[in-house]
Amino acid sequence: MNIRVIRHLREMMDFSDAVRARGERIGFVPTMGYLHEGHLSLMREARRRASTVVASIFVNPTQFGPNEDLSRYPRDFARDCAMMETVPVDVVFAPEGSDMYPPRAQTWVEVTEITRGLCGKGRPGHFRGVTTVVAKLFNIVKPHLAFFGEKDFQQLRAIQQMVADLNFDIEIVPMPIVREPDNLAMSSRNAYLTPEQHSDALALSCAIGAARKNFACARTANELVDTAAKILNRAGIAVEYVEVVDAETLAPTTSLEAPVLLAIAARVGKTRLIDNIVLSRAS
Amino acid sequence: MNIRVIRHLREMMDFSDAVRARGERIGFVPTMGYLHEGHLSLMREARRRASTVVASIFVNPTQFGPNEDLSRYPRDFARDCAMMETVPVDVVFAPEGSDMYPPRAQTWVEVTEITRGLCGKGRPGHFRGVTTVVAKLFNIVKPHLAFFGEKDFQQLRAIQQMVADLNFDIEIVPMPIVREPDNLAMSSRNAYLTPEQHSDALALSCAIGAARKNFACARTANELVDTAAKILNRAGIAVEYVEVVDAETLAPTTSLEAPVLLAIAARVGKTRLIDNIVLSRAS
Repeated sequence: MNIRVIRHLREMMDFSDAVRARGERIGFVPTMGYLHEGHLSLMREARRRASTVVASIFVNPTQFGPNEDLSRYPRDFARDCAMMETVPVDVVFAPEGSDMYPPRAQTWVEVTEITRGLCGKGRPGHFRGVTTVVAKLFNIVKPHLAFFGEKDFQQLRAIQQMVADLNFDIEIVPMPIVREPDNLAMSSRNAYLTPEQHSDALALSCAIGAARKNFACARTANELVDTAAKILNRAGIAVEYVEVVDAETLAPTTSLEAPVLLAIAARVGKTRLIDNIVLSRAS
Repeated sequence: MNIRVIRHLREMMDFSDAVRARGERIGFVPTMGYLHEGHLSLMREARRRASTVVASIFVNPTQFGPNEDLSRYPRDFARDCAMMETVPVDVVFAPEGSDMYPPRAQTWVEVTEITRGLCGKGRPGHFRGVTTVVAKLFNIVKPHLAFFGEKDFQQLRAIQQMVADLNFDIEIVPMPIVREPDNLAMSSRNAYLTPEQHSDALALSCAIGAARKNFACARTANELVDTAAKILNRAGIAVEYVEVVDAETLAPTTSLEAPVLLAIAARVGKTRLIDNIVLSRAS
């Protein structure tokens, strides 16, 4: 195995200091593991744009709610390493939970506005956990560039806002959603789905596709929401939200003049899935 | 004038990147200006321990409450620069408020436990403003070492906790309180005091001194508090708190076995002053 596994925080910092001292650039892909093609697309872009590629695998407890799937979140470190070697990734940073959150840890990084709606409504504390762990990882890995998928669009916007507001000297590179051949957005949580549930879950990407097609003639955000909602409801899955929001602020909007985000969250069986698309008159 | 003044965030980052690329160490002293010997003692220690010394002057609006003294906080940039040249400080970073907090800024760094009591009780939001601006300044100035005075002991502990929790790769150097010849703890806010108020304010350091003398024979925290409170009350100043807390967690304590902090906040006229001492059986 050629990939270097670093488990200790100080060792990771020292590695990155040495890379930086050589004047080289570090590209970073933070993940919770159980990798799929979406993650690999981020790592390949990091490979293209940086001389050293670091990926982290850490199932972050602070971004899971008390009734969420922390304990059963899928894990397969050996398979993840094998996949990362195909990129290749140089270093995988896989810290222990007790090192990341020692007993008296009590500091939170919170982005307030962008995290208010959409997934922030149904998952209180989730984004606070995400921005806190990403701030920590940024300080440990010290990257020049960090790569995030647009599948978790609200997460991407929260991190971009955190980086701007806290003046992290890091370029955030957003990367497009990667989909299965049948159009289901790739997610580690797809592993939970039975074949029948997988087939039900296609309603999400189908609703997204319909919204994209109808966008040119749509006059209001409501029309787009209605089209998507109909498709989701027909599939008999439990819709958490279908919303059109301003693509920059993620605030609710009725107008379609500025770029908007159509975002969906729904539960298929016990599995919570999300999907989205940015729609813009200019593009 | 030999001191270099940097006002723009990107210029400060580039300066620090260049210093780091040369393998040199940056010592950083964040201040709100209107400097006194306490600040200068931090800068002189930075001068001893780092090859490049950066001080910042920024009256941070987010750490002032709506009824506090933001607008009348004393300022004298020319005098500050002259004082810093005696150290000498290499760079003063003096950003604009609108660059530090652009319109849509919405990210907060919050240390929850350590900031609960003492000044945190009477100044809601104060420490959130402090930790947020210090996190920003750390990301902009990129220091190896940062120096903080023990006069603001709770601030020092909050920043140490933030640095540990968010994994900032920065050594925090605490420095002892510097006092006037008459023992009043140095503070930019002492400039508000009339000569008579200055004389009343000596009750704070007097109470601290009495607690230090009584510590060896004191059996409970209450005895120390009582001694200090009597001295403060005799002076007829408005005591906000006199408390003994654990010096590490800043949680209330009755025992004197572990190191404790005796901390005082009081208002002399309209001016809020603080003072403190760490007392330890071992020392």
